[in-house]
Amino acid sequence: MTQFNEAELTEAVVASFAQTPDARTKFLLQELVKSLHDYVRRTNLSFDEWAAAIDFLTRTGQTCTPSRQEFILLSDVLGVSMLVDAINHRDRAGATETTVLGPFYVGEHKVTPHGTDISSDLKGEKMFVQARVTDLSGAPLPGAAVDVWHADDEGFYDSQRPSYASDGPSSRARFIADADGRFFFRTILPCSYPIPTDGPVGQMIVSTGRHPMRPAHVHFLVDAEGYEPLITHVFIGGDAYLDSDVVFGVKDELIAKVDQRTDPVMPDGKLAAAPWHLMSYEFRMKPGAGTAPRPMLAKPIDAAAE
Amino acid sequence: MTQFNEAELTEAVVASFAQTPDARTKFLLQELVKSLHDYVRRTNLSFDEWAAAIDFLTRTGQTCTPSRQEFILLSDVLGVSMLVDAINHRDRAGATETTVLGPFYVGEHKVTPHGTDISSDLKGEKMFVQARVTDLSGAPLPGAAVDVWHADDEGFYDSQRPSYASDGPSSRARFIADADGRFFFRTILPCSYPIPTDGPVGQMIVSTGRHPMRPAHVHFLVDAEGYEPLITHVFIGGDAYLDSDVVFGVKDELIAKVDQRTDPVMPDGKLAAAPWHLMSYEFRMKPGAGTAPRPMLAKPIDAAAE
Repeated sequence: MTQFNEAELTEAVVASFAQTPDARTKFLLQELVKSLHDYVRRTNLSFDEWAAAIDFLTRTGQTCTPSRQEFILLSDVLGVSMLVDAINHRDRAGATETTVLGPFYVGEHKVTPHGTDISSDLKGEKMFVQARVTDLSGAPLPGAAVDVWHADDEGFYDSQRPSYASDGPSSRARFIADADGRFFFRTILPCSYPIPTDGPVGQMIVSTGRHPMRPAHVHFLVDAEGYEPLITHVFIGGDAYLDSDVVFGVKDELIAKVDQRTDPVMPDGKLAAAPWHLMSYEFRMKPGAGTAPRPMLAKPIDAAAE
Repeated sequence: MTQFNEAELTEAVVASFAQTPDARTKFLLQELVKSLHDYVRRTNLSFDEWAAAIDFLTRTGQTCTPSRQEFILLSDVLGVSMLVDAINHRDRAGATETTVLGPFYVGEHKVTPHGTDISSDLKGEKMFVQARVTDLSGAPLPGAAVDVWHADDEGFYDSQRPSYASDGPSSRARFIADADGRFFFRTILPCSYPIPTDGPVGQMIVSTGRHPMRPAHVHFLVDAEGYEPLITHVFIGGDAYLDSDVVFGVKDELIAKVDQRTDPVMPDGKLAAAPWHLMSYEFRMKPGAGTAPRPMLAKPIDAAAE
């Protein structure tokens, strides 16, 4: 028999994966077939709608570059990233909450001395960040590696700027926690910003009447040996978009009260030239294994064509 | 409230699309969110598995070129294309059965005189194709446009060859049915062939223990005013892969008995130089509207970067 009716077709595709050597891969693919077929049947998907989906996915893939990950953005705005995060971090046991990696992580950053102003010459209000990495009991974790990245005063990450290739990273650095688990640096106060709206995902969001905004935040990726890698943000308290983050990434305990200060010196004893902001946060790590993810960035087009 | 538990998260994402202006788009997106979240929850998807999916989708998009559509191929091997085809063609009422477009349609072909050998100088056994386009009662449909394309004797489409850009199409042409609804041409007997295994989709098929083969066939896309466009194949009877087509595209009535002939002249009265094959088929069109799909091909990289 060669011909299938609608129900037989799904069974035939599921059966076609029966010889998959890895049991988990087999399960994931067979469940994927069931989900996709169920969706097509339930929505009575038209040929034109299928074609629009193919076109959307193709453009999403082609929008990915070595410094932009449009498929992660798609996963983010559909809440899939936060759901994967949730089901893999069900029991935090007092450890700091996790949130999305986001599409702008570009891999391990360059180790930078404490106190450095990582915003280079960016305009914006100055912010001093002081933080600590500890275990669940509050004991310091010296040597923990902390990747930090955030958007500038206009809502762009360095990697979104045409000058990124020549100028290198900005508002992006790696710190190594000291003997007391501490690290600190200067930067600018980030602002809330739209996800990129010049690609298929941002265009979809705008066309559906959703706003594209994320509340202001700083990304942290904390790695300490013997502990689960911690991927999270610290949000700036009071932001207008904390209740409607386009990627559903806000958690209450990740919102920091960021004070405006007028002290003439910053916490490391150096002079403050103007009013500044202070962000303080403590990252509590959960015992466990694992490595921080390598970013899923597209290879440069030439490399992809190999 | 900013923070969601797992169930609330799905509700929040569904609700975020509530203002979508177009009701059908809203329905499709909300059902998509439910399907994706249900899949993640049901499979307890790990972070690494999510990352592998992002990577797979990115590479699939980046494999698309102006002459290759890897996302259609993905849809094909997961049986999604045939399911979309099935639910949109439930009542054929005697019209010829449909099947997948496939990833190698490159858009409307060049009109070619009847009798032309469209295989140019390709090696392979000669085949004469004689066909007719009719309505459901068998009455001819003069002027119907028929795009034809097929693989060569080594299993490759012209567009897969590096020489495609310079040499132009081969085994690919458009015929206009004559007053009796007929068209005919010469070509070579196509053979069964593997889908491309140098891309992410083909690699996935091979790694899951599925064979990548399609049974030998010729693609036809028939367009006649006042009738639904007909996208189909005619398969070569006796092929070893008719029962296990990697894209699930075979239907019984689409299998043609292709005879080997030794007559010294072909049906148009011209001399046959060697034994040849004869494919005869009648395409019965269903009344209706619609236009044949434009192919969902990636723009050239330069154009995509606009």
